[in-house]
Amino acid sequence: MKVWVYEQPREVPAADFRDYLDPATTAVISIDMHRGHLEDSPDCPCPAPRARDVVEPINAFHREARTLGVPIVHVKSVLRAGGADDLAGIPAAWRRTFPLHVGPIPNAAAHAIEGSPWTEWVTEVLPQDLRVENKRRLSAFYPTDLDFLLRNQRITTVVFDGGFTDCCVLNSAFDANNLNYRVIVLRDLVRGTDDPLESAALSMVSLHLGLVMDSQDLLAGWKQGFEA
Amino acid sequence: MKVWVYEQPREVPAADFRDYLDPATTAVISIDMHRGHLEDSPDCPCPAPRARDVVEPINAFHREARTLGVPIVHVKSVLRAGGADDLAGIPAAWRRTFPLHVGPIPNAAAHAIEGSPWTEWVTEVLPQDLRVENKRRLSAFYPTDLDFLLRNQRITTVVFDGGFTDCCVLNSAFDANNLNYRVIVLRDLVRGTDDPLESAALSMVSLHLGLVMDSQDLLAGWKQGFEA
Amino acid sequence: MKVWVYEQPREVPAADFRDYLDPATTAVISIDMHRGHLEDSPDCPCPAPRARDVVEPINAFHREARTLGVPIVHVKSVLRAGGADDLAGIPAAWRRTFPLHVGPIPNAAAHAIEGSPWTEWVTEVLPQDLRVENKRRLSAFYPTDLDFLLRNQRITTVVFDGGFTDCCVLNSAFDANNLNYRVIVLRDLVRGTDDPLESAALSMVSLHLGLVMDSQDLLAGWKQGFEA
Amino acid sequence: MKVWVYEQPREVPAADFRDYLDPATTAVISIDMHRGHLEDSPDCPCPAPRARDVVEPINAFHREARTLGVPIVHVKSVLRAGGADDLAGIPAAWRRTFPLHVGPIPNAAAHAIEGSPWTEWVTEVLPQDLRVENKRRLSAFYPTDLDFLLRNQRITTVVFDGGFTDCCVLNSAFDANNLNYRVIVLRDLVRGTDDPLESAALSMVSLHLGLVMDSQDLLAGWKQGFEA
Repeated sequence: MKVWVYEQPREVPAADFRDYLDPATTAVISIDMHRGHLEDSPDCPCPAPRARDVVEPINAFHREARTLGVPIVHVKSVLRAGGADDLAGIPAAWRRTFPLHVGPIPNAAAHAIEGSPWTEWVTEVLPQDLRVENKRRLSAFYPTDLDFLLRNQRITTVVFDGGFTDCCVLNSAFDANNLNYRVIVLRDLVRGTDDPLESAALSMVSLHLGLVMDSQDLLAGWKQGFEA
Repeated sequence: MKVWVYEQPREVPAADFRDYLDPATTAVISIDMHRGHLEDSPDCPCPAPRARDVVEPINAFHREARTLGVPIVHVKSVLRAGGADDLAGIPAAWRRTFPLHVGPIPNAAAHAIEGSPWTEWVTEVLPQDLRVENKRRLSAFYPTDLDFLLRNQRITTVVFDGGFTDCCVLNSAFDANNLNYRVIVLRDLVRGTDDPLESAALSMVSLHLGLVMDSQDLLAGWKQGFEA
Repeated sequence: MKVWVYEQPREVPAADFRDYLDPATTAVISIDMHRGHLEDSPDCPCPAPRARDVVEPINAFHREARTLGVPIVHVKSVLRAGGADDLAGIPAAWRRTFPLHVGPIPNAAAHAIEGSPWTEWVTEVLPQDLRVENKRRLSAFYPTDLDFLLRNQRITTVVFDGGFTDCCVLNSAFDANNLNYRVIVLRDLVRGTDDPLESAALSMVSLHLGLVMDSQDLLAGWKQGFEA
Repeated sequence: MKVWVYEQPREVPAADFRDYLDPATTAVISIDMHRGHLEDSPDCPCPAPRARDVVEPINAFHREARTLGVPIVHVKSVLRAGGADDLAGIPAAWRRTFPLHVGPIPNAAAHAIEGSPWTEWVTEVLPQDLRVENKRRLSAFYPTDLDFLLRNQRITTVVFDGGFTDCCVLNSAFDANNLNYRVIVLRDLVRGTDDPLESAALSMVSLHLGLVMDSQDLLAGWKQGFEA
């Protein structure tokens, strides 16, 4: 079975990772594929332009996963209008730190505001999919009900795709690990701040948290079985 | 005020970060400075040898912080003898993934076992310090009472030092951020898997989570005020 | 200051409870005042008919609280259509236990379903109010973002009104207590399963968790100061 | 199968509660059976004298449960010496409210202090048992690692015995319910503040949270099967 360990492709025995590989107890967690990150516009409140490249590949992966009965959970940031959980409360740190690197973000105050177009999904969200729509900071797990939902569905493996490999995806992978989910991150379906941090985040996942795989290898294994 | 943003030293106005800089509402969180990571022996169950270099610098920083009334919270991994929360339950992921990079870890089963010498502190822990001794996986916050403790002490800023910049420190910084603490990571008092991942983890902190500082700059500011 | 201790009115010194009494750090948490509990119809999926009596008194209290700048947080149960977090997952215990006492509840499967009329508020919810709309079981705090929201607003005292004194209100008061909020339950603005359990739940609050007060006494104290 | 519903014995079909009755996925949670509650002395810092009557019956039940392979998890309150998580932080509410009912508690400041005799177990705790020793307020679940531990052991049913039926036991039963454990409270092995509140707490459990049973009925069923 091919996985990526610290930037290198590696063959590892699937037998060593059986608990990671059963689609019957797996959910796909797709993070923050919404217009607030992906819109190609100077008004985009929290730009993650590199993730635009994976919109269609994520859609294609989700379609295949659904045919195998794997639930898709779409998670996104939504903040209360009025700012009670962010700008009018204790503001998120990234609002001050990220601009130190990229410069001012003119429309950041509009990020994720409930009811605004910025919270609209860009990837396909089907009625049978599951949605978690109150991510407030970086993690998909806190303060949302994602863990509650996954436990109800007796999910034990989570497969991540989506935006900000070195931020929300990595944070969510840490949380999933601490909650004892088996963690897989799909190397070709996540995008980070830039190449170096994306690569480093994947390396961290591969050393500390779980498996880094290509989506086609995971799909092929789910369908045909994983080579021992 | 000097901070590090994506590997570069930068002068930023202290006035922009006033809520980060008050020692009266700050605690230092020192992570996993115990023999199980730091022992210079082939039996060391979870080696983090690079962090040996920061034992004395951390001690020196803690002594200064104590004189300013800043509490030190020492957090470490402790696992129940018998394995109920790890090897005899759902095993931690790193046990299978980290060896893919570094090769077999002969004594890994002994890691953090309650009552064993591997859980002994290497840094100075004084009676007035606070201790959190049931970290079970990577985060200092879950499933421990660290957040409960910090709220009781009305702490709003956390300063991290200690081991595995790209693992437990980064995970704890993510959690602290999501819980809305103001986060500072001390660049000279943390060590990671290797230089590149250590550097990348600090870059992630600096972009998404809070301030990366040198300990001497923080101490000097606490003592003499931060230059606007 | 009048409070109720184990069913008895008592005068206690306000000076002993100063940290409970500042409206500037207080929020009102109004629990489950929706049609799914309150509708006067045989279709009502989870009937709490006794709470109908407090709809208008709660509205009146909220109006006064708003004039004093105290935020109102309305919390309600909402379950995903399709049942992933309840009937099609691990079903809530009350579905099997409550009918042992009251007999079959014909429309229980419709309880709290997202998008259905059963989730509509019965009390007044104004645009400036705050809403938590993903309570999944009994507590207002888990797995919702209520604690996250209150911390962002630097709230330290919570005042409860609403439905099921001996169930969701009591559960939420326990949680608030464990999170170190100062807890007040308004005796005249909560209703339980029946008189004895309502009374017992208030006694438990008064012994273990915080203050049981009449809403008029709290309002009068907020306006005119509490007599020492 | 005999259960208690709102103070009345009732025969219910075991087939309706199969998910509650498998010892292979069950743990016993024994709460706060320590000298700080049970010591027969005027110095006892948080007296729960009625629970002295169940020390031996609890021991007997635990012995039988162990022979069936059911793990016993002993949970107790322990507070840091120095008071950082209680008296020198945000003090627990009961310190001010419980004395309104029972009068001053002279040695309350000594309650649960780490390293003191007041934290010693009174019931038998065997080496193979599991221990959770950082309960800080009322719940066995927060801010402890009890949920983490139970998930690691793939426990889905929790059986409660121990002290303060209407306080820590009830709170823990609420939490277990919200976390979707199947909940059983052993009517003969818990004791509350007094008869009425103990009875009311059991009624609340029976209506909202799970099954109230006699320990002998549960043991007999575990051994011989539950009558349909």
